[in-house]
Amino acid sequence: MVLNEKEKNEFLDKYREFVRIPSISASGKSIQETASYLKDLMHSMDLNPEIMATEGNPVVYGEFDAGARETLLVYNHFDVQPVDPVGEWEADPFSAEIKEGRLYGRGSADNKGTLMARLFGIRRLMEQKKLKINLRFLFEGEEEIGSPSLDRFVRSHRERFRADSVIMEGSQIDAKGRPTVTLGVKGLLYVQLEETTGKSDLHSSLAGVAPNAAWNLVHALNTIYDGKRVLFRGFYDDVRKLNSEERKLLRDYPLDPAEMKRSYGVKRLRASTKQALAKALLAEPTCNIDGFLSGYVAEGPKTVTPRRAMAKIDFRLVPDRDPAKLYSQLRKHLKQVGFEGKMSEFGFEHPVRTSVRSRLASSMISSAGETYGKKPVVLINGAGTQPMGVFTKTLGIPDGVSAIGVGDNRSLPHAPNESVDVEKCYLAIEHTSNFLLAMGGGS
Amino acid sequence: MVLNEKEKNEFLDKYREFVRIPSISASGKSIQETASYLKDLMHSMDLNPEIMATEGNPVVYGEFDAGARETLLVYNHFDVQPVDPVGEWEADPFSAEIKEGRLYGRGSADNKGTLMARLFGIRRLMEQKKLKINLRFLFEGEEEIGSPSLDRFVRSHRERFRADSVIMEGSQIDAKGRPTVTLGVKGLLYVQLEETTGKSDLHSSLAGVAPNAAWNLVHALNTIYDGKRVLFRGFYDDVRKLNSEERKLLRDYPLDPAEMKRSYGVKRLRASTKQALAKALLAEPTCNIDGFLSGYVAEGPKTVTPRRAMAKIDFRLVPDRDPAKLYSQLRKHLKQVGFEGKMSEFGFEHPVRTSVRSRLASSMISSAGETYGKKPVVLINGAGTQPMGVFTKTLGIPDGVSAIGVGDNRSLPHAPNESVDVEKCYLAIEHTSNFLLAMGGGS
Repeated sequence: MVLNEKEKNEFLDKYREFVRIPSISASGKSIQETASYLKDLMHSMDLNPEIMATEGNPVVYGEFDAGARETLLVYNHFDVQPVDPVGEWEADPFSAEIKEGRLYGRGSADNKGTLMARLFGIRRLMEQKKLKINLRFLFEGEEEIGSPSLDRFVRSHRERFRADSVIMEGSQIDAKGRPTVTLGVKGLLYVQLEETTGKSDLHSSLAGVAPNAAWNLVHALNTIYDGKRVLFRGFYDDVRKLNSEERKLLRDYPLDPAEMKRSYGVKRLRASTKQALAKALLAEPTCNIDGFLSGYVAEGPKTVTPRRAMAKIDFRLVPDRDPAKLYSQLRKHLKQVGFEGKMSEFGFEHPVRTSVRSRLASSMISSAGETYGKKPVVLINGAGTQPMGVFTKTLGIPDGVSAIGVGDNRSLPHAPNESVDVEKCYLAIEHTSNFLLAMGGGS
Repeated sequence: MVLNEKEKNEFLDKYREFVRIPSISASGKSIQETASYLKDLMHSMDLNPEIMATEGNPVVYGEFDAGARETLLVYNHFDVQPVDPVGEWEADPFSAEIKEGRLYGRGSADNKGTLMARLFGIRRLMEQKKLKINLRFLFEGEEEIGSPSLDRFVRSHRERFRADSVIMEGSQIDAKGRPTVTLGVKGLLYVQLEETTGKSDLHSSLAGVAPNAAWNLVHALNTIYDGKRVLFRGFYDDVRKLNSEERKLLRDYPLDPAEMKRSYGVKRLRASTKQALAKALLAEPTCNIDGFLSGYVAEGPKTVTPRRAMAKIDFRLVPDRDPAKLYSQLRKHLKQVGFEGKMSEFGFEHPVRTSVRSRLASSMISSAGETYGKKPVVLINGAGTQPMGVFTKTLGIPDGVSAIGVGDNRSLPHAPNESVDVEKCYLAIEHTSNFLLAMGGGS
């Protein structure tokens, strides 16, 4: 089901319009405008859209009733990350400029391209009357700030989102053009630590007698993680052992350390073998400083003892780690080491891992092979996080996978100069159609 | 020699004009304008001023020839610290607003008030033909960035700055109205550490495999200082033992821990006894983080693995610690612990400690007692840093003290809402006159 030129151009027009709306959820920018834009588009596709209020940013809902027994829930998000450091972008982050076959813009890869490709793949089947599975859509506007309202929202609309399986976002095409099917996600705990030692920054000649908020935070952070292991009690509890199929998938993960170094632009990786890298990426939890700010950070010297220090940290979790339990452990640890600062959190996400034997997984794997002409890479779970726990845990949907993404190894999601290869969008549209045919055929 | 109203008003006008010029040396702002302003003022006082070029910001020179055998060098600086965090100022940092008897403004205490009070104290004696000691003035414009050009400048003008003693800035009036005479200064080493791990910030789902610049810097900092002791080899070398007179001065230092807590606005101090606080403040070296910046530090969560991290650190040194030697030791240490970032420095200052028995010290102590009607507090050296080593080490001037300052315990130098009690300026003018009479009487 290859796309014709008309379909390609129509898709590209809508995709660029979509990227140009600066829907940054961290600052609340343009979220309503983006939801309205999506609703209008879905209305034109006969997907019965509706903007649904949550406690935070709205959800855009949609549905298609094929009269089938089975229902698939399609999840994506329409919000984007902030654009800092904005000076490192080569073009305006919301210009949706196309250069040498790639479309540049914040959200182009994460996640507007994937969302748009799915809608166009579905529309084609609808027009051809070949869509034989019921669909529900849940497009949220808070993913990039940790989906704080999503769980409560689906709890109060259980009937509407009842489904047999769910497809999430978050997969990409690797450097050799292979698609990825991802059987789950890592969980997330994101916290902010804030130390305050006084009412005012002080002259640093007082450093011998006055507390220093930056030192206090540096020392607290150092008790959390030593560069190799997380140091506080309980962090490695509840880590599910991999079964033999999962271990095989991990072994088969075709990582290329040299290519990773190149594409990430780093001098060295944190492990040298393919196996160790695959394990670190997918099967082990992480502890990451996202940001640190204290005192005087402009040009030149200023001799000051800072009263305030702030760090943002995220933990990526593997099944069956409960982020709320981790949060309590971290709080307890910080108290024990004498850290008196404030800890606040920006949402919890549960880790999820689905069986490779499910029909959802097998349909996704076969349709991916058919569309791309290559054996897909199948991952036990992704390195990233999506709110998949909301669907599998809260709604009790049996099967969930992440697949059909437009990003590739050059996409730089969350970083400056995020971009997408336009040809990979067309393939994602085809893949969507092929996958739905495979799922529909089985009902 | 109490001031009359005319003298007070004249002083206040000039002082406010002076504070209103935003001479921030860290950004190079208004430095030339300030030098010209000073030159014009000194010209009106018959002090033969001259703006002298250095490799950096200019020096304002001046002189008065009393035909005496002895020459006193008067050192002050006319540059100021940056104003960050500017949002915490209650008024414009350069408005020189007077509120409840205090003049507010960046530089009001450090060091424009002191400089101006000295000039007015000198002018009075000149008008009364009572000035019996030769004077040289060296007003520099780079103190707040570590006086990078000063040493080389005085080396190439040795004749001009030949003197028998030097008075530096840096003393203040304590909460009980007692003046301070400070027999020396701490030294300083100020460095900036910058870690760079790659070309781009990365999505933090890669934290398992990609290096994190913030963690690398946190771990490096943690090997430098544990909150109580500096940890690298050689840091405590070359610390001169206190003699019995110095130990007595340290014991007599009338610190008030409760008042310190109040005036610094901190929850607690780093030591609880008066003795331990005095020792930490004056007789021990310190290691202070002035600033730390890495990754995403705006509102909300952003899941990013930062490519860059930067920290500014200052070390305050006690005699006879050589800052250049310390710099080498720190560099060696960081290499040993595997820190691969860049280290750069913003100037070195030598620590200095002068004998309490010198005539300079005794004239300063007696005139202070006379002016303020209180026994002055005499310190073995200050907690802060001034480029006194340039005079005692490079020029070989035998005696140097810091004294006659307008600041008090509420002045908050380097911090928001820096201010000075106007009445204390008038006392500083009187003290200058009385001190010069005492010095002149002895020649």
